[in-house]
Amino acid sequence: MSSLAIFVWELMGTAVLILLGNGVVANVVLRKNAGHNAGFLFITFGWAFGVFAGASIASPTGAHLNPAVTLGLAISGQTPWSKVPVYMAGELAGAIVGAVLCWAVYKLQFDDHPEPENTLGIFSTAPQIRNKAWNLVTEIIGTFVLVGWILLSPTAKAPTAGVPEFGNSALGYAGVSFVVLVIGISLGGPTGYAINPARDLGPRLAYAFLLPIKGKANPDWGYSWVPVVGPLAGGALAAALYLAVHNLT
Amino acid sequence: MSSLAIFVWELMGTAVLILLGNGVVANVVLRKNAGHNAGFLFITFGWAFGVFAGASIASPTGAHLNPAVTLGLAISGQTPWSKVPVYMAGELAGAIVGAVLCWAVYKLQFDDHPEPENTLGIFSTAPQIRNKAWNLVTEIIGTFVLVGWILLSPTAKAPTAGVPEFGNSALGYAGVSFVVLVIGISLGGPTGYAINPARDLGPRLAYAFLLPIKGKANPDWGYSWVPVVGPLAGGALAAALYLAVHNLT
Amino acid sequence: MSSLAIFVWELMGTAVLILLGNGVVANVVLRKNAGHNAGFLFITFGWAFGVFAGASIASPTGAHLNPAVTLGLAISGQTPWSKVPVYMAGELAGAIVGAVLCWAVYKLQFDDHPEPENTLGIFSTAPQIRNKAWNLVTEIIGTFVLVGWILLSPTAKAPTAGVPEFGNSALGYAGVSFVVLVIGISLGGPTGYAINPARDLGPRLAYAFLLPIKGKANPDWGYSWVPVVGPLAGGALAAALYLAVHNLT
Amino acid sequence: MSSLAIFVWELMGTAVLILLGNGVVANVVLRKNAGHNAGFLFITFGWAFGVFAGASIASPTGAHLNPAVTLGLAISGQTPWSKVPVYMAGELAGAIVGAVLCWAVYKLQFDDHPEPENTLGIFSTAPQIRNKAWNLVTEIIGTFVLVGWILLSPTAKAPTAGVPEFGNSALGYAGVSFVVLVIGISLGGPTGYAINPARDLGPRLAYAFLLPIKGKANPDWGYSWVPVVGPLAGGALAAALYLAVHNLT
Repeated sequence: MSSLAIFVWELMGTAVLILLGNGVVANVVLRKNAGHNAGFLFITFGWAFGVFAGASIASPTGAHLNPAVTLGLAISGQTPWSKVPVYMAGELAGAIVGAVLCWAVYKLQFDDHPEPENTLGIFSTAPQIRNKAWNLVTEIIGTFVLVGWILLSPTAKAPTAGVPEFGNSALGYAGVSFVVLVIGISLGGPTGYAINPARDLGPRLAYAFLLPIKGKANPDWGYSWVPVVGPLAGGALAAALYLAVHNLT
Repeated sequence: MSSLAIFVWELMGTAVLILLGNGVVANVVLRKNAGHNAGFLFITFGWAFGVFAGASIASPTGAHLNPAVTLGLAISGQTPWSKVPVYMAGELAGAIVGAVLCWAVYKLQFDDHPEPENTLGIFSTAPQIRNKAWNLVTEIIGTFVLVGWILLSPTAKAPTAGVPEFGNSALGYAGVSFVVLVIGISLGGPTGYAINPARDLGPRLAYAFLLPIKGKANPDWGYSWVPVVGPLAGGALAAALYLAVHNLT
Repeated sequence: MSSLAIFVWELMGTAVLILLGNGVVANVVLRKNAGHNAGFLFITFGWAFGVFAGASIASPTGAHLNPAVTLGLAISGQTPWSKVPVYMAGELAGAIVGAVLCWAVYKLQFDDHPEPENTLGIFSTAPQIRNKAWNLVTEIIGTFVLVGWILLSPTAKAPTAGVPEFGNSALGYAGVSFVVLVIGISLGGPTGYAINPARDLGPRLAYAFLLPIKGKANPDWGYSWVPVVGPLAGGALAAALYLAVHNLT
Repeated sequence: MSSLAIFVWELMGTAVLILLGNGVVANVVLRKNAGHNAGFLFITFGWAFGVFAGASIASPTGAHLNPAVTLGLAISGQTPWSKVPVYMAGELAGAIVGAVLCWAVYKLQFDDHPEPENTLGIFSTAPQIRNKAWNLVTEIIGTFVLVGWILLSPTAKAPTAGVPEFGNSALGYAGVSFVVLVIGISLGGPTGYAINPARDLGPRLAYAFLLPIKGKANPDWGYSWVPVVGPLAGGALAAALYLAVHNLT
């Protein structure tokens, strides 16, 4: 597959993921919405089935949508290292596009919002208790579960390792969306489960430099490296586990 | 397949979709109901699995149930233009039938309701903040995700492109219901996610001309074109994207 | 298949369905429970996945679990009339067994409950507004959707028409559980969606004659025929629709 | 398969299950979390899809993850008795590892929690009304449904009986997660549905001997045998039912 095609499919899938994931938070946070204050289960469903929608669109490339997944697949020998930069570029570009689309969907609600300084959380994650070392631990473990599942589960193997035929099954990508659902429900409490560097950094860049939200907050660059480094470390650890055990029978 | 058969299957599938979709809103809005005030997650589940039920019944025709889907499939060359009018007629007729059945299920609750002027929202959508240009943007983007997913995802391709054999799989139409679920959760806040001209116009016609609800409201014709034009535009844009990228490998 | 086998498999499947369906209501209604006041979405999930569990156990007989389904399959020619009594006997017996097991699970909670006269609703349905004619309409339409979906959807055809091989698919019975979920969510408001004569009558008999709940209520025999006759009529109407349209191509 | 491999795969799968299952309770109970007070439906989703994640990782061994399942499969002749100890050892070790990982994810929240004596419930179950005989009945019936479903349902047979090929299906383990979901929703009210000796005993051991939570409670050894003995008895009864009926046709 050409680099252009990888870039375009990853961009489209990640844009859909971020549009839907940022969208559910906007629906809950901004007051003139049908889903205002609909709760954290609602938020986790939005992100989980946002993964389903985005991943099943990006099936020609194996639907990484996440630099931590790309890194894990590269370390475990399932994605060529030469393709890693183009995958990651498509993912980051898609995340920025998705955040901008989310802003357009909720433009009137942003204008109406009485606390514009409290809108960064719609786009990027923040910890409930700020302590970068332990916040990193939380992000590492959450991503370790995600990438470990993708590498070890036969349910996941085909669609994520670049075998698009598998995507033709009726529900090829429901499995990974169930895993993202439970990571949010079970491990998302302390840091908002970035578990994906593009998911956090792309919308943060859009928020900082593109979105015309009056009175918007500082983009919190001081924390921004945690949801990038933590997921990459978790993905690498999962790949190490995979290499250690996957032939054990 | 004969035009009569297309009309009948699309009518039945859309009637089930609208009966179940309008039904969940009636359950939440009207006070003497087990589901009164059950929240927006509850509403999005009703619409999503209403799509599952209706679409798996209408599988002989590919289960469009939505003029925006029919338009997108026609532009992308997957449904003959000559069949478009009969698809759309079946969809609109089915939506009217579904709205009438919903009224019959909740007849006692409508009679008991103390605010009969606040019942249009059970049948048709309305924006939280009225601004037709931006409401259009919201409907366009929501439908773009729906029709784009149907056209681009291999998960969706077979059942919606008129290949009924695929519908025999255990859960052929669960994928599209998951996508409708997440569109409601993530993009449904500002306008109530019509994303389907028949879903909005059919029940509005039933409300205006058929349903015997005493003291019912004006059907809000001034807004009624937004959830028709927005979804059609979103479906057309998705087809354009499909034509641009689907051969990219 | 022998009549004994039909009786046993239908009994086991229906017992599991009713244990789980009555169980979720007990969890919500009785105060010393982890799920106390957990809401109507919670209740509809309990019944829906109770159908999944019970139906996938009873797959050797096609997993009717419901006299309205048996009647619809008999009228449409997919179950021999000679087997109908044994199916229905197994379903009713299973519903009684399930209600007794539910009582045992929640025995301590029943003893603790300060309003023992308000426990019939754990086992059997009651209308929110009592009007037998319109309550019948609600039950007829709800069951019409259920049995119509089973008869018309290719998703459902194999597992419910007595082709057990199909049950080997990973999620053979998830489809019908999704349909039961949405019927509860969308049509369950006015009457509590019996949509199954055994589901309502079996637990009512257990409540009246078997369960040792001190101070328990009158079993409301005056209403009890509605959730029996309504579902049977809805199942018969769905079979008539099936015969009219299923060859339409 | 070697005993080492069985031990490792069961350990990994059970660790993921317990990390996610204990995690959702931590998210709900501890106050500085996005999911604080998110309700019992939320908790049941966490455990259910924790089973999905853990089981699809442990597919090489048939994904028991639960000594009651191992016992039921041994009695019914589907797992050799010689392998039972290694399965159970892997399950218990994995449960301990999962509880420790959960503590690490929520370390800051544990430190912040004003009632450290109320943290045992994050790790292990406790009855709402303490009466060991009836608490046992509740655990026996819940586990009977789980193991009975695994043994009798063709949906479950392949993945749990050590036929890993089946795990390659798109959603091989979603069925068992739906059953765990409904057992929690419908039967989890009185005792918190341990239905798995390792799920309760492993985290209790971790809580008692490993976790550095200041001011933590007594591990309630007096109750601890109920969620071990009840599930084993329920699993054995389910196997007896299986042997009695599975050839009935």
